[in-house]
Amino acid sequence: MIFQEKLDKIVRKNKSLVCVGLDSDLSKIEEENQFSFNKKIIEATHDLVCSYKLNSAFYESIGHIGIKALKDTCDYLKNKYPEIPIIIDAKRADIGNTNNGYVQFVFTYLNADAVTLHPYFGEEAIRPFLDCKDKGIIILCKTSNPGSGEFQDLKVGGISLYKLVAKNVAKKWNINKNCMLVVGATYPEELRQVRKIVGDMTLLVPGIGAQGGDLEATLKAGLNSKKQGLMINSSRGIIFAKNPREEAEKLRNSINKFLETFRN
Amino acid sequence: MIFQEKLDKIVRKNKSLVCVGLDSDLSKIEEENQFSFNKKIIEATHDLVCSYKLNSAFYESIGHIGIKALKDTCDYLKNKYPEIPIIIDAKRADIGNTNNGYVQFVFTYLNADAVTLHPYFGEEAIRPFLDCKDKGIIILCKTSNPGSGEFQDLKVGGISLYKLVAKNVAKKWNINKNCMLVVGATYPEELRQVRKIVGDMTLLVPGIGAQGGDLEATLKAGLNSKKQGLMINSSRGIIFAKNPREEAEKLRNSINKFLETFRN
Repeated sequence: MIFQEKLDKIVRKNKSLVCVGLDSDLSKIEEENQFSFNKKIIEATHDLVCSYKLNSAFYESIGHIGIKALKDTCDYLKNKYPEIPIIIDAKRADIGNTNNGYVQFVFTYLNADAVTLHPYFGEEAIRPFLDCKDKGIIILCKTSNPGSGEFQDLKVGGISLYKLVAKNVAKKWNINKNCMLVVGATYPEELRQVRKIVGDMTLLVPGIGAQGGDLEATLKAGLNSKKQGLMINSSRGIIFAKNPREEAEKLRNSINKFLETFRN
Repeated sequence: MIFQEKLDKIVRKNKSLVCVGLDSDLSKIEEENQFSFNKKIIEATHDLVCSYKLNSAFYESIGHIGIKALKDTCDYLKNKYPEIPIIIDAKRADIGNTNNGYVQFVFTYLNADAVTLHPYFGEEAIRPFLDCKDKGIIILCKTSNPGSGEFQDLKVGGISLYKLVAKNVAKKWNINKNCMLVVGATYPEELRQVRKIVGDMTLLVPGIGAQGGDLEATLKAGLNSKKQGLMINSSRGIIFAKNPREEAEKLRNSINKFLETFRN
């Protein structure tokens, strides 16, 4: 099944646009290891999410043991909740052939459904990813960090670089209809601009919660013509909360309440 | 010791600007595992190189076992040849705090000396790397792939994006004097342009050999005022050769012969 179909199904089933980020920073968890922590979060939230996002940095930090915990988490999800898409937030990209190693890491070893990538090498280089028709290929567009404008906001031929990335991905790279973009919730106006460029394409939106992104502004700016097309990511705000289920439910319900108002 | 001092020492000792890339693609090696293959290459070339570069994609491809082989290789180098700098060609970059995970991976777990990074997030985000004063922080500037121009060659405020990356890294990011850049040997004119912008900064140059970069054009365009400042990377051309030592020596000697002509 292609990524977008899988996503659409779980969005309907769980009535959720919430992507929970399993950024299981070892210095912040009490559990013995990251896998047991993740299992607890998954059990608490699996009926409230549209996807899980695992940022590889938090696992690589301890090397091969962390990578094994990342794999164990993906295996657990694939066995127990195969209907929930897994995004590896790896932010990779290299020259053509070298990307095959990353493709194997994310889609064979981890058996994940989607991956995040840097755009800097251009389409030609990341073909090995784009050729994975059933997988979601999520390109960094306008990132949530305060200094993202250093290059991303610069004008190239009259439009900002992040808009050109959006345009190229939507109009050229997306021949397999498997591309998506990352746009930070901390930049609602830029999110609105990207939405205008990419039609109904799904956008992964980090930056709600700890980073200060505003939920309502994000939804207003980012929803597509079907009032969908967003994965609203929250990581620290959910997984390190006293009651992760409560926080995930709160975010899901806030989104759905807004969607109701919007539809009426 | 800071990276540049370590590099200068081994350049003098081994009389070499050759960086051997341990891109130990499992599908191309006969050895049981990547670590035993790497040991063989290291033993054959350690007195001919100025650095080893390990591209993480080739290790991640098989997951935690590959990451362990990557670590074993770094440990072996640190124990036996501590004077040779290790570059992890990881091409990472994320938002601020998240980069701490990658910093730990590369500089604590692997105990490497340098890392390659994507520039797209901007300086603010990659501060955790730039703050590692003794480490080499190598930013992608003009990459060697045929399609690298899609974004890198676009004009921003009158200059190409890759030149602006070079300018920002050299003039703003480099407060700890630990920054370097990646420029592909397949683009000698762009290499010349970057050299004009960055002064004597060390450049990591992939693309010689299998990718078709010309050695003499690279040296003419890229050497700094001291007739140094380059790490000429060759991976496949050396490690998969019938006689890796011979190939490494050939490349080193070709470079040195050119340097002699140049000095006379």
